[in-house]
Amino acid sequence: MNFASDNAGPAHPKVIEALGRANEGHVGSYGADPLTQGAADKLREVLGAPEAAVHFVATGTAANALALACLAEPWSAIFCAPAAHVHVDECNAPEFYTGGAKLIPVQGPDGKIGAASLEAAILAEETRGVHGPQRGPVTLTQATESGTTYSQSELEAIGTVAGRYGVKLHMDGARLANALAASNLAPAQMVERVAALSFGGTKNGLLGAEAVVLFDPELSWQFELRRKRAGHLFSKHRYLAAQMDAYLTDGLWMELASRANAAATRLSEGLVAQGYELAWPTEANMVFFRAPARVHEAAMAQGAVYHLWDEAGEENPDRPVTARLVCDWSKSDGEVDALLALFA
Amino acid sequence: MNFASDNAGPAHPKVIEALGRANEGHVGSYGADPLTQGAADKLREVLGAPEAAVHFVATGTAANALALACLAEPWSAIFCAPAAHVHVDECNAPEFYTGGAKLIPVQGPDGKIGAASLEAAILAEETRGVHGPQRGPVTLTQATESGTTYSQSELEAIGTVAGRYGVKLHMDGARLANALAASNLAPAQMVERVAALSFGGTKNGLLGAEAVVLFDPELSWQFELRRKRAGHLFSKHRYLAAQMDAYLTDGLWMELASRANAAATRLSEGLVAQGYELAWPTEANMVFFRAPARVHEAAMAQGAVYHLWDEAGEENPDRPVTARLVCDWSKSDGEVDALLALFA
Amino acid sequence: MNFASDNAGPAHPKVIEALGRANEGHVGSYGADPLTQGAADKLREVLGAPEAAVHFVATGTAANALALACLAEPWSAIFCAPAAHVHVDECNAPEFYTGGAKLIPVQGPDGKIGAASLEAAILAEETRGVHGPQRGPVTLTQATESGTTYSQSELEAIGTVAGRYGVKLHMDGARLANALAASNLAPAQMVERVAALSFGGTKNGLLGAEAVVLFDPELSWQFELRRKRAGHLFSKHRYLAAQMDAYLTDGLWMELASRANAAATRLSEGLVAQGYELAWPTEANMVFFRAPARVHEAAMAQGAVYHLWDEAGEENPDRPVTARLVCDWSKSDGEVDALLALFA
Amino acid sequence: MNFASDNAGPAHPKVIEALGRANEGHVGSYGADPLTQGAADKLREVLGAPEAAVHFVATGTAANALALACLAEPWSAIFCAPAAHVHVDECNAPEFYTGGAKLIPVQGPDGKIGAASLEAAILAEETRGVHGPQRGPVTLTQATESGTTYSQSELEAIGTVAGRYGVKLHMDGARLANALAASNLAPAQMVERVAALSFGGTKNGLLGAEAVVLFDPELSWQFELRRKRAGHLFSKHRYLAAQMDAYLTDGLWMELASRANAAATRLSEGLVAQGYELAWPTEANMVFFRAPARVHEAAMAQGAVYHLWDEAGEENPDRPVTARLVCDWSKSDGEVDALLALFA
Repeated sequence: MNFASDNAGPAHPKVIEALGRANEGHVGSYGADPLTQGAADKLREVLGAPEAAVHFVATGTAANALALACLAEPWSAIFCAPAAHVHVDECNAPEFYTGGAKLIPVQGPDGKIGAASLEAAILAEETRGVHGPQRGPVTLTQATESGTTYSQSELEAIGTVAGRYGVKLHMDGARLANALAASNLAPAQMVERVAALSFGGTKNGLLGAEAVVLFDPELSWQFELRRKRAGHLFSKHRYLAAQMDAYLTDGLWMELASRANAAATRLSEGLVAQGYELAWPTEANMVFFRAPARVHEAAMAQGAVYHLWDEAGEENPDRPVTARLVCDWSKSDGEVDALLALFA
Repeated sequence: MNFASDNAGPAHPKVIEALGRANEGHVGSYGADPLTQGAADKLREVLGAPEAAVHFVATGTAANALALACLAEPWSAIFCAPAAHVHVDECNAPEFYTGGAKLIPVQGPDGKIGAASLEAAILAEETRGVHGPQRGPVTLTQATESGTTYSQSELEAIGTVAGRYGVKLHMDGARLANALAASNLAPAQMVERVAALSFGGTKNGLLGAEAVVLFDPELSWQFELRRKRAGHLFSKHRYLAAQMDAYLTDGLWMELASRANAAATRLSEGLVAQGYELAWPTEANMVFFRAPARVHEAAMAQGAVYHLWDEAGEENPDRPVTARLVCDWSKSDGEVDALLALFA
Repeated sequence: MNFASDNAGPAHPKVIEALGRANEGHVGSYGADPLTQGAADKLREVLGAPEAAVHFVATGTAANALALACLAEPWSAIFCAPAAHVHVDECNAPEFYTGGAKLIPVQGPDGKIGAASLEAAILAEETRGVHGPQRGPVTLTQATESGTTYSQSELEAIGTVAGRYGVKLHMDGARLANALAASNLAPAQMVERVAALSFGGTKNGLLGAEAVVLFDPELSWQFELRRKRAGHLFSKHRYLAAQMDAYLTDGLWMELASRANAAATRLSEGLVAQGYELAWPTEANMVFFRAPARVHEAAMAQGAVYHLWDEAGEENPDRPVTARLVCDWSKSDGEVDALLALFA
Repeated sequence: MNFASDNAGPAHPKVIEALGRANEGHVGSYGADPLTQGAADKLREVLGAPEAAVHFVATGTAANALALACLAEPWSAIFCAPAAHVHVDECNAPEFYTGGAKLIPVQGPDGKIGAASLEAAILAEETRGVHGPQRGPVTLTQATESGTTYSQSELEAIGTVAGRYGVKLHMDGARLANALAASNLAPAQMVERVAALSFGGTKNGLLGAEAVVLFDPELSWQFELRRKRAGHLFSKHRYLAAQMDAYLTDGLWMELASRANAAATRLSEGLVAQGYELAWPTEANMVFFRAPARVHEAAMAQGAVYHLWDEAGEENPDRPVTARLVCDWSKSDGEVDALLALFA
């Protein structure tokens, strides 16, 4: 009963099969192969962005840090949510890749950036000329690290603020498929105001493949140089491309995200029915709920695997502790129900 | 007839199979899985280094740049061969990862660093106190980018010089298996004086997996932090580990290298028999030979794919041009002979 | 009536004279001159730190960024006050010099870091292994950017927390003399728990000279290399040393700080007597007070020069606006009273 | 008899006087003062560059590294002479400031870059797409570190090559005045093809002041941000400006350089008359000559202070050793003759 992460689950069998099919004969290396071109075209089509530059990397941190480095200067302030993966879970990768930009946490509801807070944060920069950092991009995570999603109106509000100050928008879409599966928006609508997108695949059924989409293709060559000097350009590039190609074929990516979301919904509803309180609404494939510490201990003792989100505090077994339960595409109803039984 | 690169060929089917086997159920992410531990243990055993820290990354450039960053300071001089991959083919990755170290080319025979030249280069640094860069590590490529290998006595001479000045040794072993297959040395002998090893797999039958071996395990945690902030820590780490595990099982890695070397030897001998001159001795899996420009043009027109090494010069079809022919593990005698026929 | 900054005022005439005296004949460059040795010795004596390494630079940002780079790793979190100069007024210099460390704002009273908040901030890091930044140094400004000072007990509380977690302490002492002049502490007491000190001079009567004091002399050589590669090693070093030497001779540094503090006290008391409210207590040489926007406009129209601290808000002439008034060593009672008259 | 460096001598008394005159009252900090504006205007006029951006820093390394960072990308190759100060004497400052660019030594006569070698070096880059560094700026030192100067035709040849490939030109003019004093060229002619100039003052009579001239003023703001985050923006900026202002007033800068050159010429001719051999022609204010080791030992024993350039080799007192003798503006004929007497 492993609900620790969508990184803990397997890749989808079709992706493994695609690797096998790709493993024939000799092709150009470093992306000069037909699979790479094809997969990039598919992603452009999915996003309704025929001119966008599409490049593949193997990890989400690489995607985010390289994308931000294309949008920020070393002397920039980058605006992000306090819990943004780029801020708390990438060991200063954005600072490394940008050459020293500063991440500015911006408050908002349910793990999201609020548009008004963003405007205040932007206005607080560039008030001292050369002395402070300069306004750089804003990055938002869709779906968020708290398992919530930005609505269309929230995206519009943030995009409007960003546009007002000439601030570019990066979207960390490590779970973009989950956000799409939870919404009525077409992909093109969801990324409408985005300058650079980290398009995730690894958390949703791939072995390790992400895309960076640069809607301004003039950034493409810079990205390629940054990727190469960071060691993120794969020589046998077809194996990245094959994953992404399988992902985007016949809607596999959306099917897997829908499955994961459905499992999380089932889990979330079950917990609420049992009287537990959610920390944030369950809008994608992650459930955050509060339970007494002893409940978590008991569940883990029976084999449940998941992360606690705030372990600090005195050693009172009744203290409420938030936990994160993540459903990947492979979670069955049975597995969800078995976990729920542990909390009953 | 693609002899462009060992990156152009397929992965070995056993490696694809290993990915399929690894794709079962949920495991710890970021390396906290049994396959990772097992593959690291196998590599420690192969190298006779039970205490060494072993970490996996997906590309050779990442392996080299991260390893060098653990051995060098931002104000270091790093000594390398003029044709070293880290110097000419990694788009300043070592400079990026070290925070600004300087690479100093050191001459030597057949694409190698010479021990006497290395000593002179080391002596030329730290002559001006704080003003110049400080002596940092030496990095050598085994087998070299010129298809040659360092002999045991050459390694000893370089190791002796390095040791005399407290200079640490990095080995770029992107083709270490090819070098081993060409020598009588055990792996432990070949890396005897090495502080950090980039242990290649991608060029020799994997999809994309390399190991960094730190013989001083105290560097391990620093490496892990550097890898994470560079975005090179795989979340679904088992898929890196599965490749490396298959590679090190039943001697697959040496078998594949031996096949590649044998193909290169056959090719090299065939070219010499036809009267062509080699640029450097064929000691691993790459052949560098000179032929009139028109010969290359004719071969390529008939479908041969490979790289020319010095295309400059006036447009004389009789001018000699060096070419590189690379044999990966999958090259059959028939394919070699077919290529030879084009040059006959 | 310029109260804009302690950077706006003149150097003390004794310092100019010292430059003239230093300007005789040929001496060793890059610090190999007797004046440099002498000035460093004087500072060691003043601080009661006979073993400390002392190095000179020309700017406070250089002092801070170089000192922090010696205490932090690129993957560190550096703990600072939200208004810390290093965070808001150095254009990402700490991020640049450390190679990408992250500054974490820590709340506290009156522009200071609070010990309890510091402990919470430290505890919030290193909760996720390799994924988040690692605990780095804490930096505090004494006197603060808000014109307040850390008391001995506050310094002890912070030092105790830092010590508990092995976190090193940097003190930005751009106005250390002002803090000392406001306290009963000896210099050695004030820096008792400090690992690296930026010892200011420029704001207190020098043209441009600061010292970095490393209480662990093992950091000295690293500092020298960092300073050189940053272009902060002066070739004609005697002119930095001459300033610092004059500063530390016959207590000039403390005399100038006392004068500046006295002027600020006079100004602060005058404003309070006129009914104005202080934003923070006046404990060093800066006064922060609130007045209606129209009062500031009127004062400036009559020639007062100073900075407003929060200019945002609707265009209501009665809205309260905080202003900063800085007294440097040269402010006379008459000048203070003339300014006060504008606010009467 | 100190001929060790032009950094070892005093500032000109007029410069000290200018500091005293500048030390009156309160002025804007960080360059917002009339002296700064005036000095920049004077330099623009001297260079015949009314549109150029002019910024001041305190050290030559800062000037060079900041200027190069404005012309290069982190993935650039920067072309320089093998003995360039930026390459061998700045402790990797260019690598630090550019974020990892690579310096490529280019051969040439007498410490200079040769135009043909430069073209070959440029052509050798960008042959491998994204894998190698990209062509960045060329930097030349005028006068060179070998005491020679580029002639107008040499500058034109280099400028033509650079222009052919879109490569920008940086000039390290730490001794630009000496080069001008040795030539018939007007300043505007000498910098005709230069994109960014490090205009030296420290080696020629100032305490510590250099200018960076950006002939494309669009680089100005980027420069200002880079300077600030590097800690090279002086708060009491008038003291940098006062030096530069005095330097450029009534031709002081050219007068001092002429004096230094004349002293070097007298010294060089004296040595040649005594039968010594020059390592390179004496064209500015430095003399490089060869003498048996025992001659240097004897001279130094009698109080001569200067640097040997190649101390390596066996301990034979008759072996020829090159020495560098530097004349700053303050060298009198008597001092030169006294030194010559030691070599007689």
